[in-house]
Amino acid sequence: MASTYIDMETLKFLLHKVHDLESVLKNDRFEDHDKESLDMFLDSVKEFSDRELFPYFKEMDETPAHHKDGTVIVHKQVDVMMKKGGEMGLIAAPFDYEAGGLQIPFMVHTAATYIQDAANNHLPGYAGLTQGAAELIVHFANKELNDAYVPNMLSGQWGGTMCLTEPQAGSSLSDIVTKATPTDDGHYKLNGQKIFISGGDYQYVENVVHLVLARIEGAPAGTKGISLFVVPKHRIKENGDLEFNDVTTVADFQKMGQKGYCTTHLGFGDADDCKGWLVGEANQGLKYMFMMMNGARIGVGRGAAAIAMAAYQASLQYANERPQGRKLQSSGKKNPEEGQSLIIEHPDVRRMLLLQKSIAEGSISLILLASRYQDILESSKDEEEKKKAKLLLEILIPMVKTFPSEAGAQSVNTGLQVLGGYGFCEDFILQQYYRDIRIFSIYEGTTGIQSQDLLGRKVPMENGKALQLLSSEIMETIGKASNHNDLAPYAKKLGGKLKLAQEVIGSLMQYAQKGNYERYLADANLFMEFLSHITISWLWLDMATHAKVSLVSGDKTHSEEFYESKIHAMKFYFKYELTKTTSLAETLMDSETLTVKTDQEVFI
Amino acid sequence: MASTYIDMETLKFLLHKVHDLESVLKNDRFEDHDKESLDMFLDSVKEFSDRELFPYFKEMDETPAHHKDGTVIVHKQVDVMMKKGGEMGLIAAPFDYEAGGLQIPFMVHTAATYIQDAANNHLPGYAGLTQGAAELIVHFANKELNDAYVPNMLSGQWGGTMCLTEPQAGSSLSDIVTKATPTDDGHYKLNGQKIFISGGDYQYVENVVHLVLARIEGAPAGTKGISLFVVPKHRIKENGDLEFNDVTTVADFQKMGQKGYCTTHLGFGDADDCKGWLVGEANQGLKYMFMMMNGARIGVGRGAAAIAMAAYQASLQYANERPQGRKLQSSGKKNPEEGQSLIIEHPDVRRMLLLQKSIAEGSISLILLASRYQDILESSKDEEEKKKAKLLLEILIPMVKTFPSEAGAQSVNTGLQVLGGYGFCEDFILQQYYRDIRIFSIYEGTTGIQSQDLLGRKVPMENGKALQLLSSEIMETIGKASNHNDLAPYAKKLGGKLKLAQEVIGSLMQYAQKGNYERYLADANLFMEFLSHITISWLWLDMATHAKVSLVSGDKTHSEEFYESKIHAMKFYFKYELTKTTSLAETLMDSETLTVKTDQEVFI
Repeated sequence: MASTYIDMETLKFLLHKVHDLESVLKNDRFEDHDKESLDMFLDSVKEFSDRELFPYFKEMDETPAHHKDGTVIVHKQVDVMMKKGGEMGLIAAPFDYEAGGLQIPFMVHTAATYIQDAANNHLPGYAGLTQGAAELIVHFANKELNDAYVPNMLSGQWGGTMCLTEPQAGSSLSDIVTKATPTDDGHYKLNGQKIFISGGDYQYVENVVHLVLARIEGAPAGTKGISLFVVPKHRIKENGDLEFNDVTTVADFQKMGQKGYCTTHLGFGDADDCKGWLVGEANQGLKYMFMMMNGARIGVGRGAAAIAMAAYQASLQYANERPQGRKLQSSGKKNPEEGQSLIIEHPDVRRMLLLQKSIAEGSISLILLASRYQDILESSKDEEEKKKAKLLLEILIPMVKTFPSEAGAQSVNTGLQVLGGYGFCEDFILQQYYRDIRIFSIYEGTTGIQSQDLLGRKVPMENGKALQLLSSEIMETIGKASNHNDLAPYAKKLGGKLKLAQEVIGSLMQYAQKGNYERYLADANLFMEFLSHITISWLWLDMATHAKVSLVSGDKTHSEEFYESKIHAMKFYFKYELTKTTSLAETLMDSETLTVKTDQEVFI
Repeated sequence: MASTYIDMETLKFLLHKVHDLESVLKNDRFEDHDKESLDMFLDSVKEFSDRELFPYFKEMDETPAHHKDGTVIVHKQVDVMMKKGGEMGLIAAPFDYEAGGLQIPFMVHTAATYIQDAANNHLPGYAGLTQGAAELIVHFANKELNDAYVPNMLSGQWGGTMCLTEPQAGSSLSDIVTKATPTDDGHYKLNGQKIFISGGDYQYVENVVHLVLARIEGAPAGTKGISLFVVPKHRIKENGDLEFNDVTTVADFQKMGQKGYCTTHLGFGDADDCKGWLVGEANQGLKYMFMMMNGARIGVGRGAAAIAMAAYQASLQYANERPQGRKLQSSGKKNPEEGQSLIIEHPDVRRMLLLQKSIAEGSISLILLASRYQDILESSKDEEEKKKAKLLLEILIPMVKTFPSEAGAQSVNTGLQVLGGYGFCEDFILQQYYRDIRIFSIYEGTTGIQSQDLLGRKVPMENGKALQLLSSEIMETIGKASNHNDLAPYAKKLGGKLKLAQEVIGSLMQYAQKGNYERYLADANLFMEFLSHITISWLWLDMATHAKVSLVSGDKTHSEEFYESKIHAMKFYFKYELTKTTSLAETLMDSETLTVKTDQEVFI
């Protein structure tokens, strides 16, 4: 069993050196925090994760959450996550003081949750969804709902969920049919079914507060007729006691991974006695939900990045301990009289580990950058800076959600291979990471949906302004890297890829201009992969440049080996991953159309 | 639950039309067989698989094989697989009449086992390894051992295994330490531990005959000192009764997938009473094992190809039944008043299904081609033809084992994505295929080992003769395809890729010529992927050409839609997969060295 799950030094390097947390701290919102206090907070989260999360990771897989007697039975550490986590402020931390929070930067909240995710990805979601539900109430609901629900949610006494998906409406939210009927008493009566509800019910909280998308009778068809409701499992009586609100737990989905994180099927109003309270205005539900969506998508990317990191640590440990095979001599033969090498000495194993490392660290760098933009949006007083951060966040978000999920899964797959036959065995942890990470490409909008968002909405938004801003940021890094002789060739390569991106987009735009949107978006998935490689290469060049500057200036925060290893990983990503954009561009610019439905039957 | 697992029409198209089974049947060895009788055999295997294998597939995952009271308890269908399968001749079929076989072509044996693998990949291995073990005895052991063991193995009364791996020696067979001590009675005494032994022990057979690699005391170090032994779990007494031979079942590995296919840890001679009988000559064990290895590696590729096919069938069925979302209008919007589309109408879903189809069908085409070469080797009287088949088989084998395993896993991954959230749930079968197929990149030499074999041994073999032959075969197909206007552009593209392959090899050879074998082989994995894409594209062009010829000539064996769909899938493979070779070549020809160990610490 692996004994480590995270590289804290790299996390702090990214947080402080590369993504400059200190500059964010200058905003008034964070005046009570400084680097030292926040590092201490992260260290305490690491200590909590070492003690309460990581030791139970395998056990939670072996004792899946399950439906029993009308509720869901989960592992006892869920109780610890909610109650102790609540006490430590893990749920409340990023909220305003006013709402009971600590006003810590979102970057730090991200880093803290990343540590927890890496330790045991089955647990932080319980707190995270509670947080997300509370956030919707804080931002959009009236004072009464805030006072009634938020304090118990932030303390971890009550859970919270987001109820979007229905059996007939997976990715297609416009087809939601859960019904909300107004009553004279100010509340609505809810009727419907919701599926795939993470953290939907469990024995350790007194109440679960569901944020439910539903359609008020007579509302317009499609996404414009969807409203948001607070629907607790137990409603609060006038005297403060709780009473059952006709929210029933129909089932708990049994899954291939994340078995300790329950995924429920809920019924609302089976006995026609389910009350819901409208959040904000009618028919604005999807808008509210989507105003929270960037945070949720950063959360998904973060979880996947964390699993990729934990898997890398486990593979690295194995490769450092396992003897197998021998070095090739210059004769091309091996000498059987010689002792076996550790497998980390074999080039192919090093290639696999470097792939894991460059994807895992590249992913968390992307996540922290997005979190930084989120912080600027929430705390800066400079409208220009905020506008820029907003657009950059918008174009990055689909990649933030997708790259760690897709490339992360690929890196865990590679990490399993490092262990050979043992990687497939339950005695080793890689196979669990392999199963767990697979859901991240599906959560919160599949890769297909994210890709359509990127190419269909984000690239064209404000006449391509977001993409232009991203290009300028990349050019700025290219400029800085070019000052160093050994980085200049990589800077030049990345510059070439930016030009290639323009060509690709120009080529695709022809379809959009002709009104052929189906064709325009047909290869959106490939475009996602293409632009993600460029983005991650940018972030690696940025990391390498920071490392180089530290080396040159004699900054001793980290060792020389540490800085050099970042430069090495950048080179690896450029040679083995960024190169993939050449082929992707070739396919994207190929005018042949093979995936748009025609009269020809192709699946025979 | 999916109701289909295979496309029999495509299998027969490949067998008869593309890979021309009839021409193989002309050899004397197969004189008792004809197309009709062999098709009937395949149909009976399909019927057996429908009834006895497929219905138990999920159940076998849910009730894993496990160690209990010194043996391994497996699902009851293992008994059916061995006994009924044995009766049907599924184990004996490819053997000589003399050994009790039916002398069916290996191509047909491959097709028959492929059907079983697709129906339930947890079962055919029990018969397959018994077959492999019997084959070693038939080819290399004396008459006494043949008479004593082979008949009961071919009938499925007794099982058989191959015992190679030891705890300290996974991929590195030169480090085997299991000891064989000669006795005066002609047999040896065996002492040692073997792990990862598929089908190593189970309650449904009276005996398991292990073919064990061990080192005779005083034998040379490394691979040159390894001998092969027959070591039954129960030895045969003079009166024919069985007596325990001190082969103990220490454990059954619990795995992420293929849970119904047991994987044991065996101890030999714990009580110093384990007898083994030498097969052939001393110190020739690894040579014998490797003479059977091509067949074994075809078997692994076949299993992975079958899972990829079954997963494709399941995804296709779901996509044809599941409504979700709407078609994009020329305004770029969707109309919510419109009914939902079936997901198979969305371009991105079609892209995913076409990826599955092109990988699954390309894989089985490769497997059948290799099986055809195997048939020529075993049955042709034309020495020139045999020599050519031998070399072609040698260069293809690493790809035969690896492409279906690696690309197959990727295609199953894509297939799971087609189902969205349901793909991750145990109620749907995709997640099982996803877990099951993951072992194939590890079985019988990992992808890393296969890639070293391809670039390190097969490419340079006989001064590049095997590769030259492969190129000539590809050129021949290019020539035929060029006769058809609509195929000519693809033929030309493939020709360009052949030239690119020469450049890549030329570039890599510089390292080998300088004696820098570590660097030469450092990116062997990428070369594997590179050459595999070219090979599979060749096979797709070949399929498309056969389809085209059938269309032109009005051959009604299959429908016009069927032929057109093959041409369409070829185009898809060329546009979306063959293009990847551009980037792979770029990386392979990049002179930067990043994965060979130096003094610089890169994993920090």
